[in-house]
Amino acid sequence: MAETNDLDARALAWSRRCREELLGSVVPFWMRHSLDREHGGYLNCLDRDGTPFDTKKHVWLQGRQVWMLAKIFTDVERRPEWLDAARLGATFLRDHCRRPDRRVWFCVTREGRPVQLQRKMFAECFYVMAMAQYARASGDAWAMDEARDVFGWVRAAAADARLTGRPVENGQEPLESLAVPMILLNLVGELDGGFRGEHAAVAADCARRILLHGQDDLRVVLENVRPDGTASLGSPEGRLVNPGHAIEAGWFLLDWAEKVGDAEVARRALEIVDWSLDAGWDPEHGGILYFLDAQGFSPVPLEWPMKLWWPHCEALVATAMAWRHTRDPRWFGRFEEIAAWTFAHFPDREHGEWYGYLDRAGDVTHRFKGGPYKGCFHVPRALLQASRLLAN
Amino acid sequence: MAETNDLDARALAWSRRCREELLGSVVPFWMRHSLDREHGGYLNCLDRDGTPFDTKKHVWLQGRQVWMLAKIFTDVERRPEWLDAARLGATFLRDHCRRPDRRVWFCVTREGRPVQLQRKMFAECFYVMAMAQYARASGDAWAMDEARDVFGWVRAAAADARLTGRPVENGQEPLESLAVPMILLNLVGELDGGFRGEHAAVAADCARRILLHGQDDLRVVLENVRPDGTASLGSPEGRLVNPGHAIEAGWFLLDWAEKVGDAEVARRALEIVDWSLDAGWDPEHGGILYFLDAQGFSPVPLEWPMKLWWPHCEALVATAMAWRHTRDPRWFGRFEEIAAWTFAHFPDREHGEWYGYLDRAGDVTHRFKGGPYKGCFHVPRALLQASRLLAN
Repeated sequence: MAETNDLDARALAWSRRCREELLGSVVPFWMRHSLDREHGGYLNCLDRDGTPFDTKKHVWLQGRQVWMLAKIFTDVERRPEWLDAARLGATFLRDHCRRPDRRVWFCVTREGRPVQLQRKMFAECFYVMAMAQYARASGDAWAMDEARDVFGWVRAAAADARLTGRPVENGQEPLESLAVPMILLNLVGELDGGFRGEHAAVAADCARRILLHGQDDLRVVLENVRPDGTASLGSPEGRLVNPGHAIEAGWFLLDWAEKVGDAEVARRALEIVDWSLDAGWDPEHGGILYFLDAQGFSPVPLEWPMKLWWPHCEALVATAMAWRHTRDPRWFGRFEEIAAWTFAHFPDREHGEWYGYLDRAGDVTHRFKGGPYKGCFHVPRALLQASRLLAN
Repeated sequence: MAETNDLDARALAWSRRCREELLGSVVPFWMRHSLDREHGGYLNCLDRDGTPFDTKKHVWLQGRQVWMLAKIFTDVERRPEWLDAARLGATFLRDHCRRPDRRVWFCVTREGRPVQLQRKMFAECFYVMAMAQYARASGDAWAMDEARDVFGWVRAAAADARLTGRPVENGQEPLESLAVPMILLNLVGELDGGFRGEHAAVAADCARRILLHGQDDLRVVLENVRPDGTASLGSPEGRLVNPGHAIEAGWFLLDWAEKVGDAEVARRALEIVDWSLDAGWDPEHGGILYFLDAQGFSPVPLEWPMKLWWPHCEALVATAMAWRHTRDPRWFGRFEEIAAWTFAHFPDREHGEWYGYLDRAGDVTHRFKGGPYKGCFHVPRALLQASRLLAN
C-alpha cells in the first residue's frame, strides 16, 4: 500500500506539473501571439518567440486551435477570453475555409483567400472537431449544424478515397490506412451524442478496423494493411510503422473501450501501446523515433530518426490512461520515463510552448513553435489529459 | 608555374580517382543488381548490398539510368552490355511508362502497371533525357522521335502549370520555381542539335530565367521568386534556399555560357556557385546543408540539416568546371575541400556505390543505395564529369 500511495503522490505531482505547463506556458503563448484580431483566425506559423514567419493560415491548425480553446473553456475554466478566441477561429473557418461543396481548404491567405486544397480529408476532419466543440462551449447551434454537415462528407470520403480527388490507378495495392478509422472514431466521439445513438455502430466499426493493423507475430502496428488486416511486407508502405500514431490509436481505443465497456478491446489497446513503445523507443538516445520499417530496412522517409513533439504527447496520454485503467505500476513507470525525457527536451523555458522537432540525439533542429503541421493542439491536449488522468 | 604544375598533377590524380570510382564501384553496382531481365526496366529500390526492398519502379530513376548507361556507352567506352542495359530501360519506359496523352507515370509496378502520376512534369523530363541519349547511343530513330514528342508536352507544361493537373487558387502567390528553367535548359542541351538551331532561343530564355533567382543583395539564389525576379520574403517558400540545386544551376549555366560564348553569364554562374557554397557549407561539421532560409528562420522542411549525396555531386562538378574555366587555384581549393568531405563520407567501400542520406554530423541515416529519388544518376554523372574536367 505504501508503494501505491507513493505512486499516487508522484502521479498527483505530475498532474500539477502538466496543468502548470498548460496554463502557465502553453496556452498563454497562443493567446499572446496567434490571435489575428484584424482578419480573424490564427497566425499559426510562429517563431520561437512568437514572431510570425508566415501569415498564411493552415486550416488543420485553425480547426485544432478552435477545438483546444473551446475544450479548455468547457473543461478547465469558463474564461471569456478563451471562448472569444475560439469564436475568432470558428467564424474564420466558417466564412473562409469551408466551401459550398463541403470541402475545406488546407491553406488560405491571412485574409482567407484559398491557397491550397489537399487530396486528403483531414482539413474537413479538423473542421468538424472544431465546430462540434465550439458549439458545446458557446451554445451556438449553427456550429453543430456545420459539424454534422461536413461530417457527412467525411463519412462518404472515408468510404471512397476518390472523393478527395486522388485517382486510384490499377497497379496500386489497395492498402487501408490507420489514419482513417482513427480520425473517424475520434470525430464520432466529438459529435453530439458521442459514441451512443446513431454513431455507436460507426465507432465499433472504426475500432475493429484500427485493430486490424496490429500484427501479433511482428508485435507492431502497421500503418497500412490489406483490407483483411494481413500485412503487405513487400513494400516500404506496407512495412511502415509510425509508433506515435499507433500509440495515439491505442489511447483512442482504450478511451472508447472504457466508455462502451469492452474489456477485450481495452486489453488489445494496451498491447498496441506496449508494442509501439517497445519498437519506437530509442535505446541509445531515448525518445520515440518517428518511423520504423517492420523488417528492419531503412525507413524511406528522410525524417525517420527525428524526435517529434506529438508522438511524445500521445505517449504521455496513453501511458497515463493505461496506468489509470490498470493501476499497474509498470505503466506508471513507462509514463515517468517518457515524461522525464519529454520535459527535459521539448519545453522552451524562455518563450513558452514546446519545440516540435529534435534530431535523434535530442537537439532542437527547428526553433519554431507553430508551423504548417504544429499548432495549439497536441501539447495542450496531452497536458490537459495527463493532468486529469493522473489526478485520480 | 611550379604551383600550376602541382595543381595539374593533383587534378589528374582526382580525375583518375573519379574514373576508378565510376567504373570500379558505381556502375558495377547497378549493372549487377538493378537490371530486371524478367520484366524489363530496373529495380531501383536497392538496399546497401543490392537487395531490393521494393519492386515498384520509379520512373525518374528509370529514365535517369537509361540516360546514364547510354552516356557512358557513348562517352567512356562502347561496351555492348551498357547499351543492352540502356535498351532494357528505354523499351520499358516506352511500353509501360508513357501514356498516349504524352504524360509519363511517376511510379509503376514491377510489371509496368500504373501506380502513381505526379502533378509535376519531371517524369516527362527524365523520359525525354533518356530517349534522346539512348537514341544517340543506339541509333534507334524511334527514341529521338519519342524525346521530341514528349518534349513538346514538357514545353507546354512549363508555360502552364495547370497542364500537370495542379489547380491554381486565387490566393496563391505566383512564384516561379528554379527547377523549371533548369530542367528545360538541360533538356534542350540533350536534344538533337543541342543549344543550336531551333532551341537556341529557348535555352537563352531559360538562362535568363535562372539568373532571375540570384539575389545580389542577399548573395543567395532563391528557389522561388516573383516573375520579375524580385524576392518574396514574407513566406518560407519565398525565402527557401536549396544550395545544391543552385550549385547545379550554376554549372548548367556555365556549361551553356561556354558553349554559346557568353562571358557575362559565365561570370554570373561562377558567382552563383560561390554564394551557394558560402551559404550552404556547414562550418561545424563540413558538407552542404540541404535547405536554408534566406533570413535565418528555421527552414520548414524537416530534412533541412541533412547532408544528401546529390548536392555534393553537383558541387564536385561545379567547382571542377569553375577551375577549368578560370584556372583560378581558389576554385581548385574549393573542389578539393568538397571532394575530401564527399569521398570520406558517401562511398560504401564494402558493397560499392554511395550512401545517399547522412545526418548533419555526417553519419549514415539511410543505408539504401537506391530509392524513390536516388538511383543511377547523380553519382555516376558527377564522377564522369569530374574525371573529364580535371583531366585537362
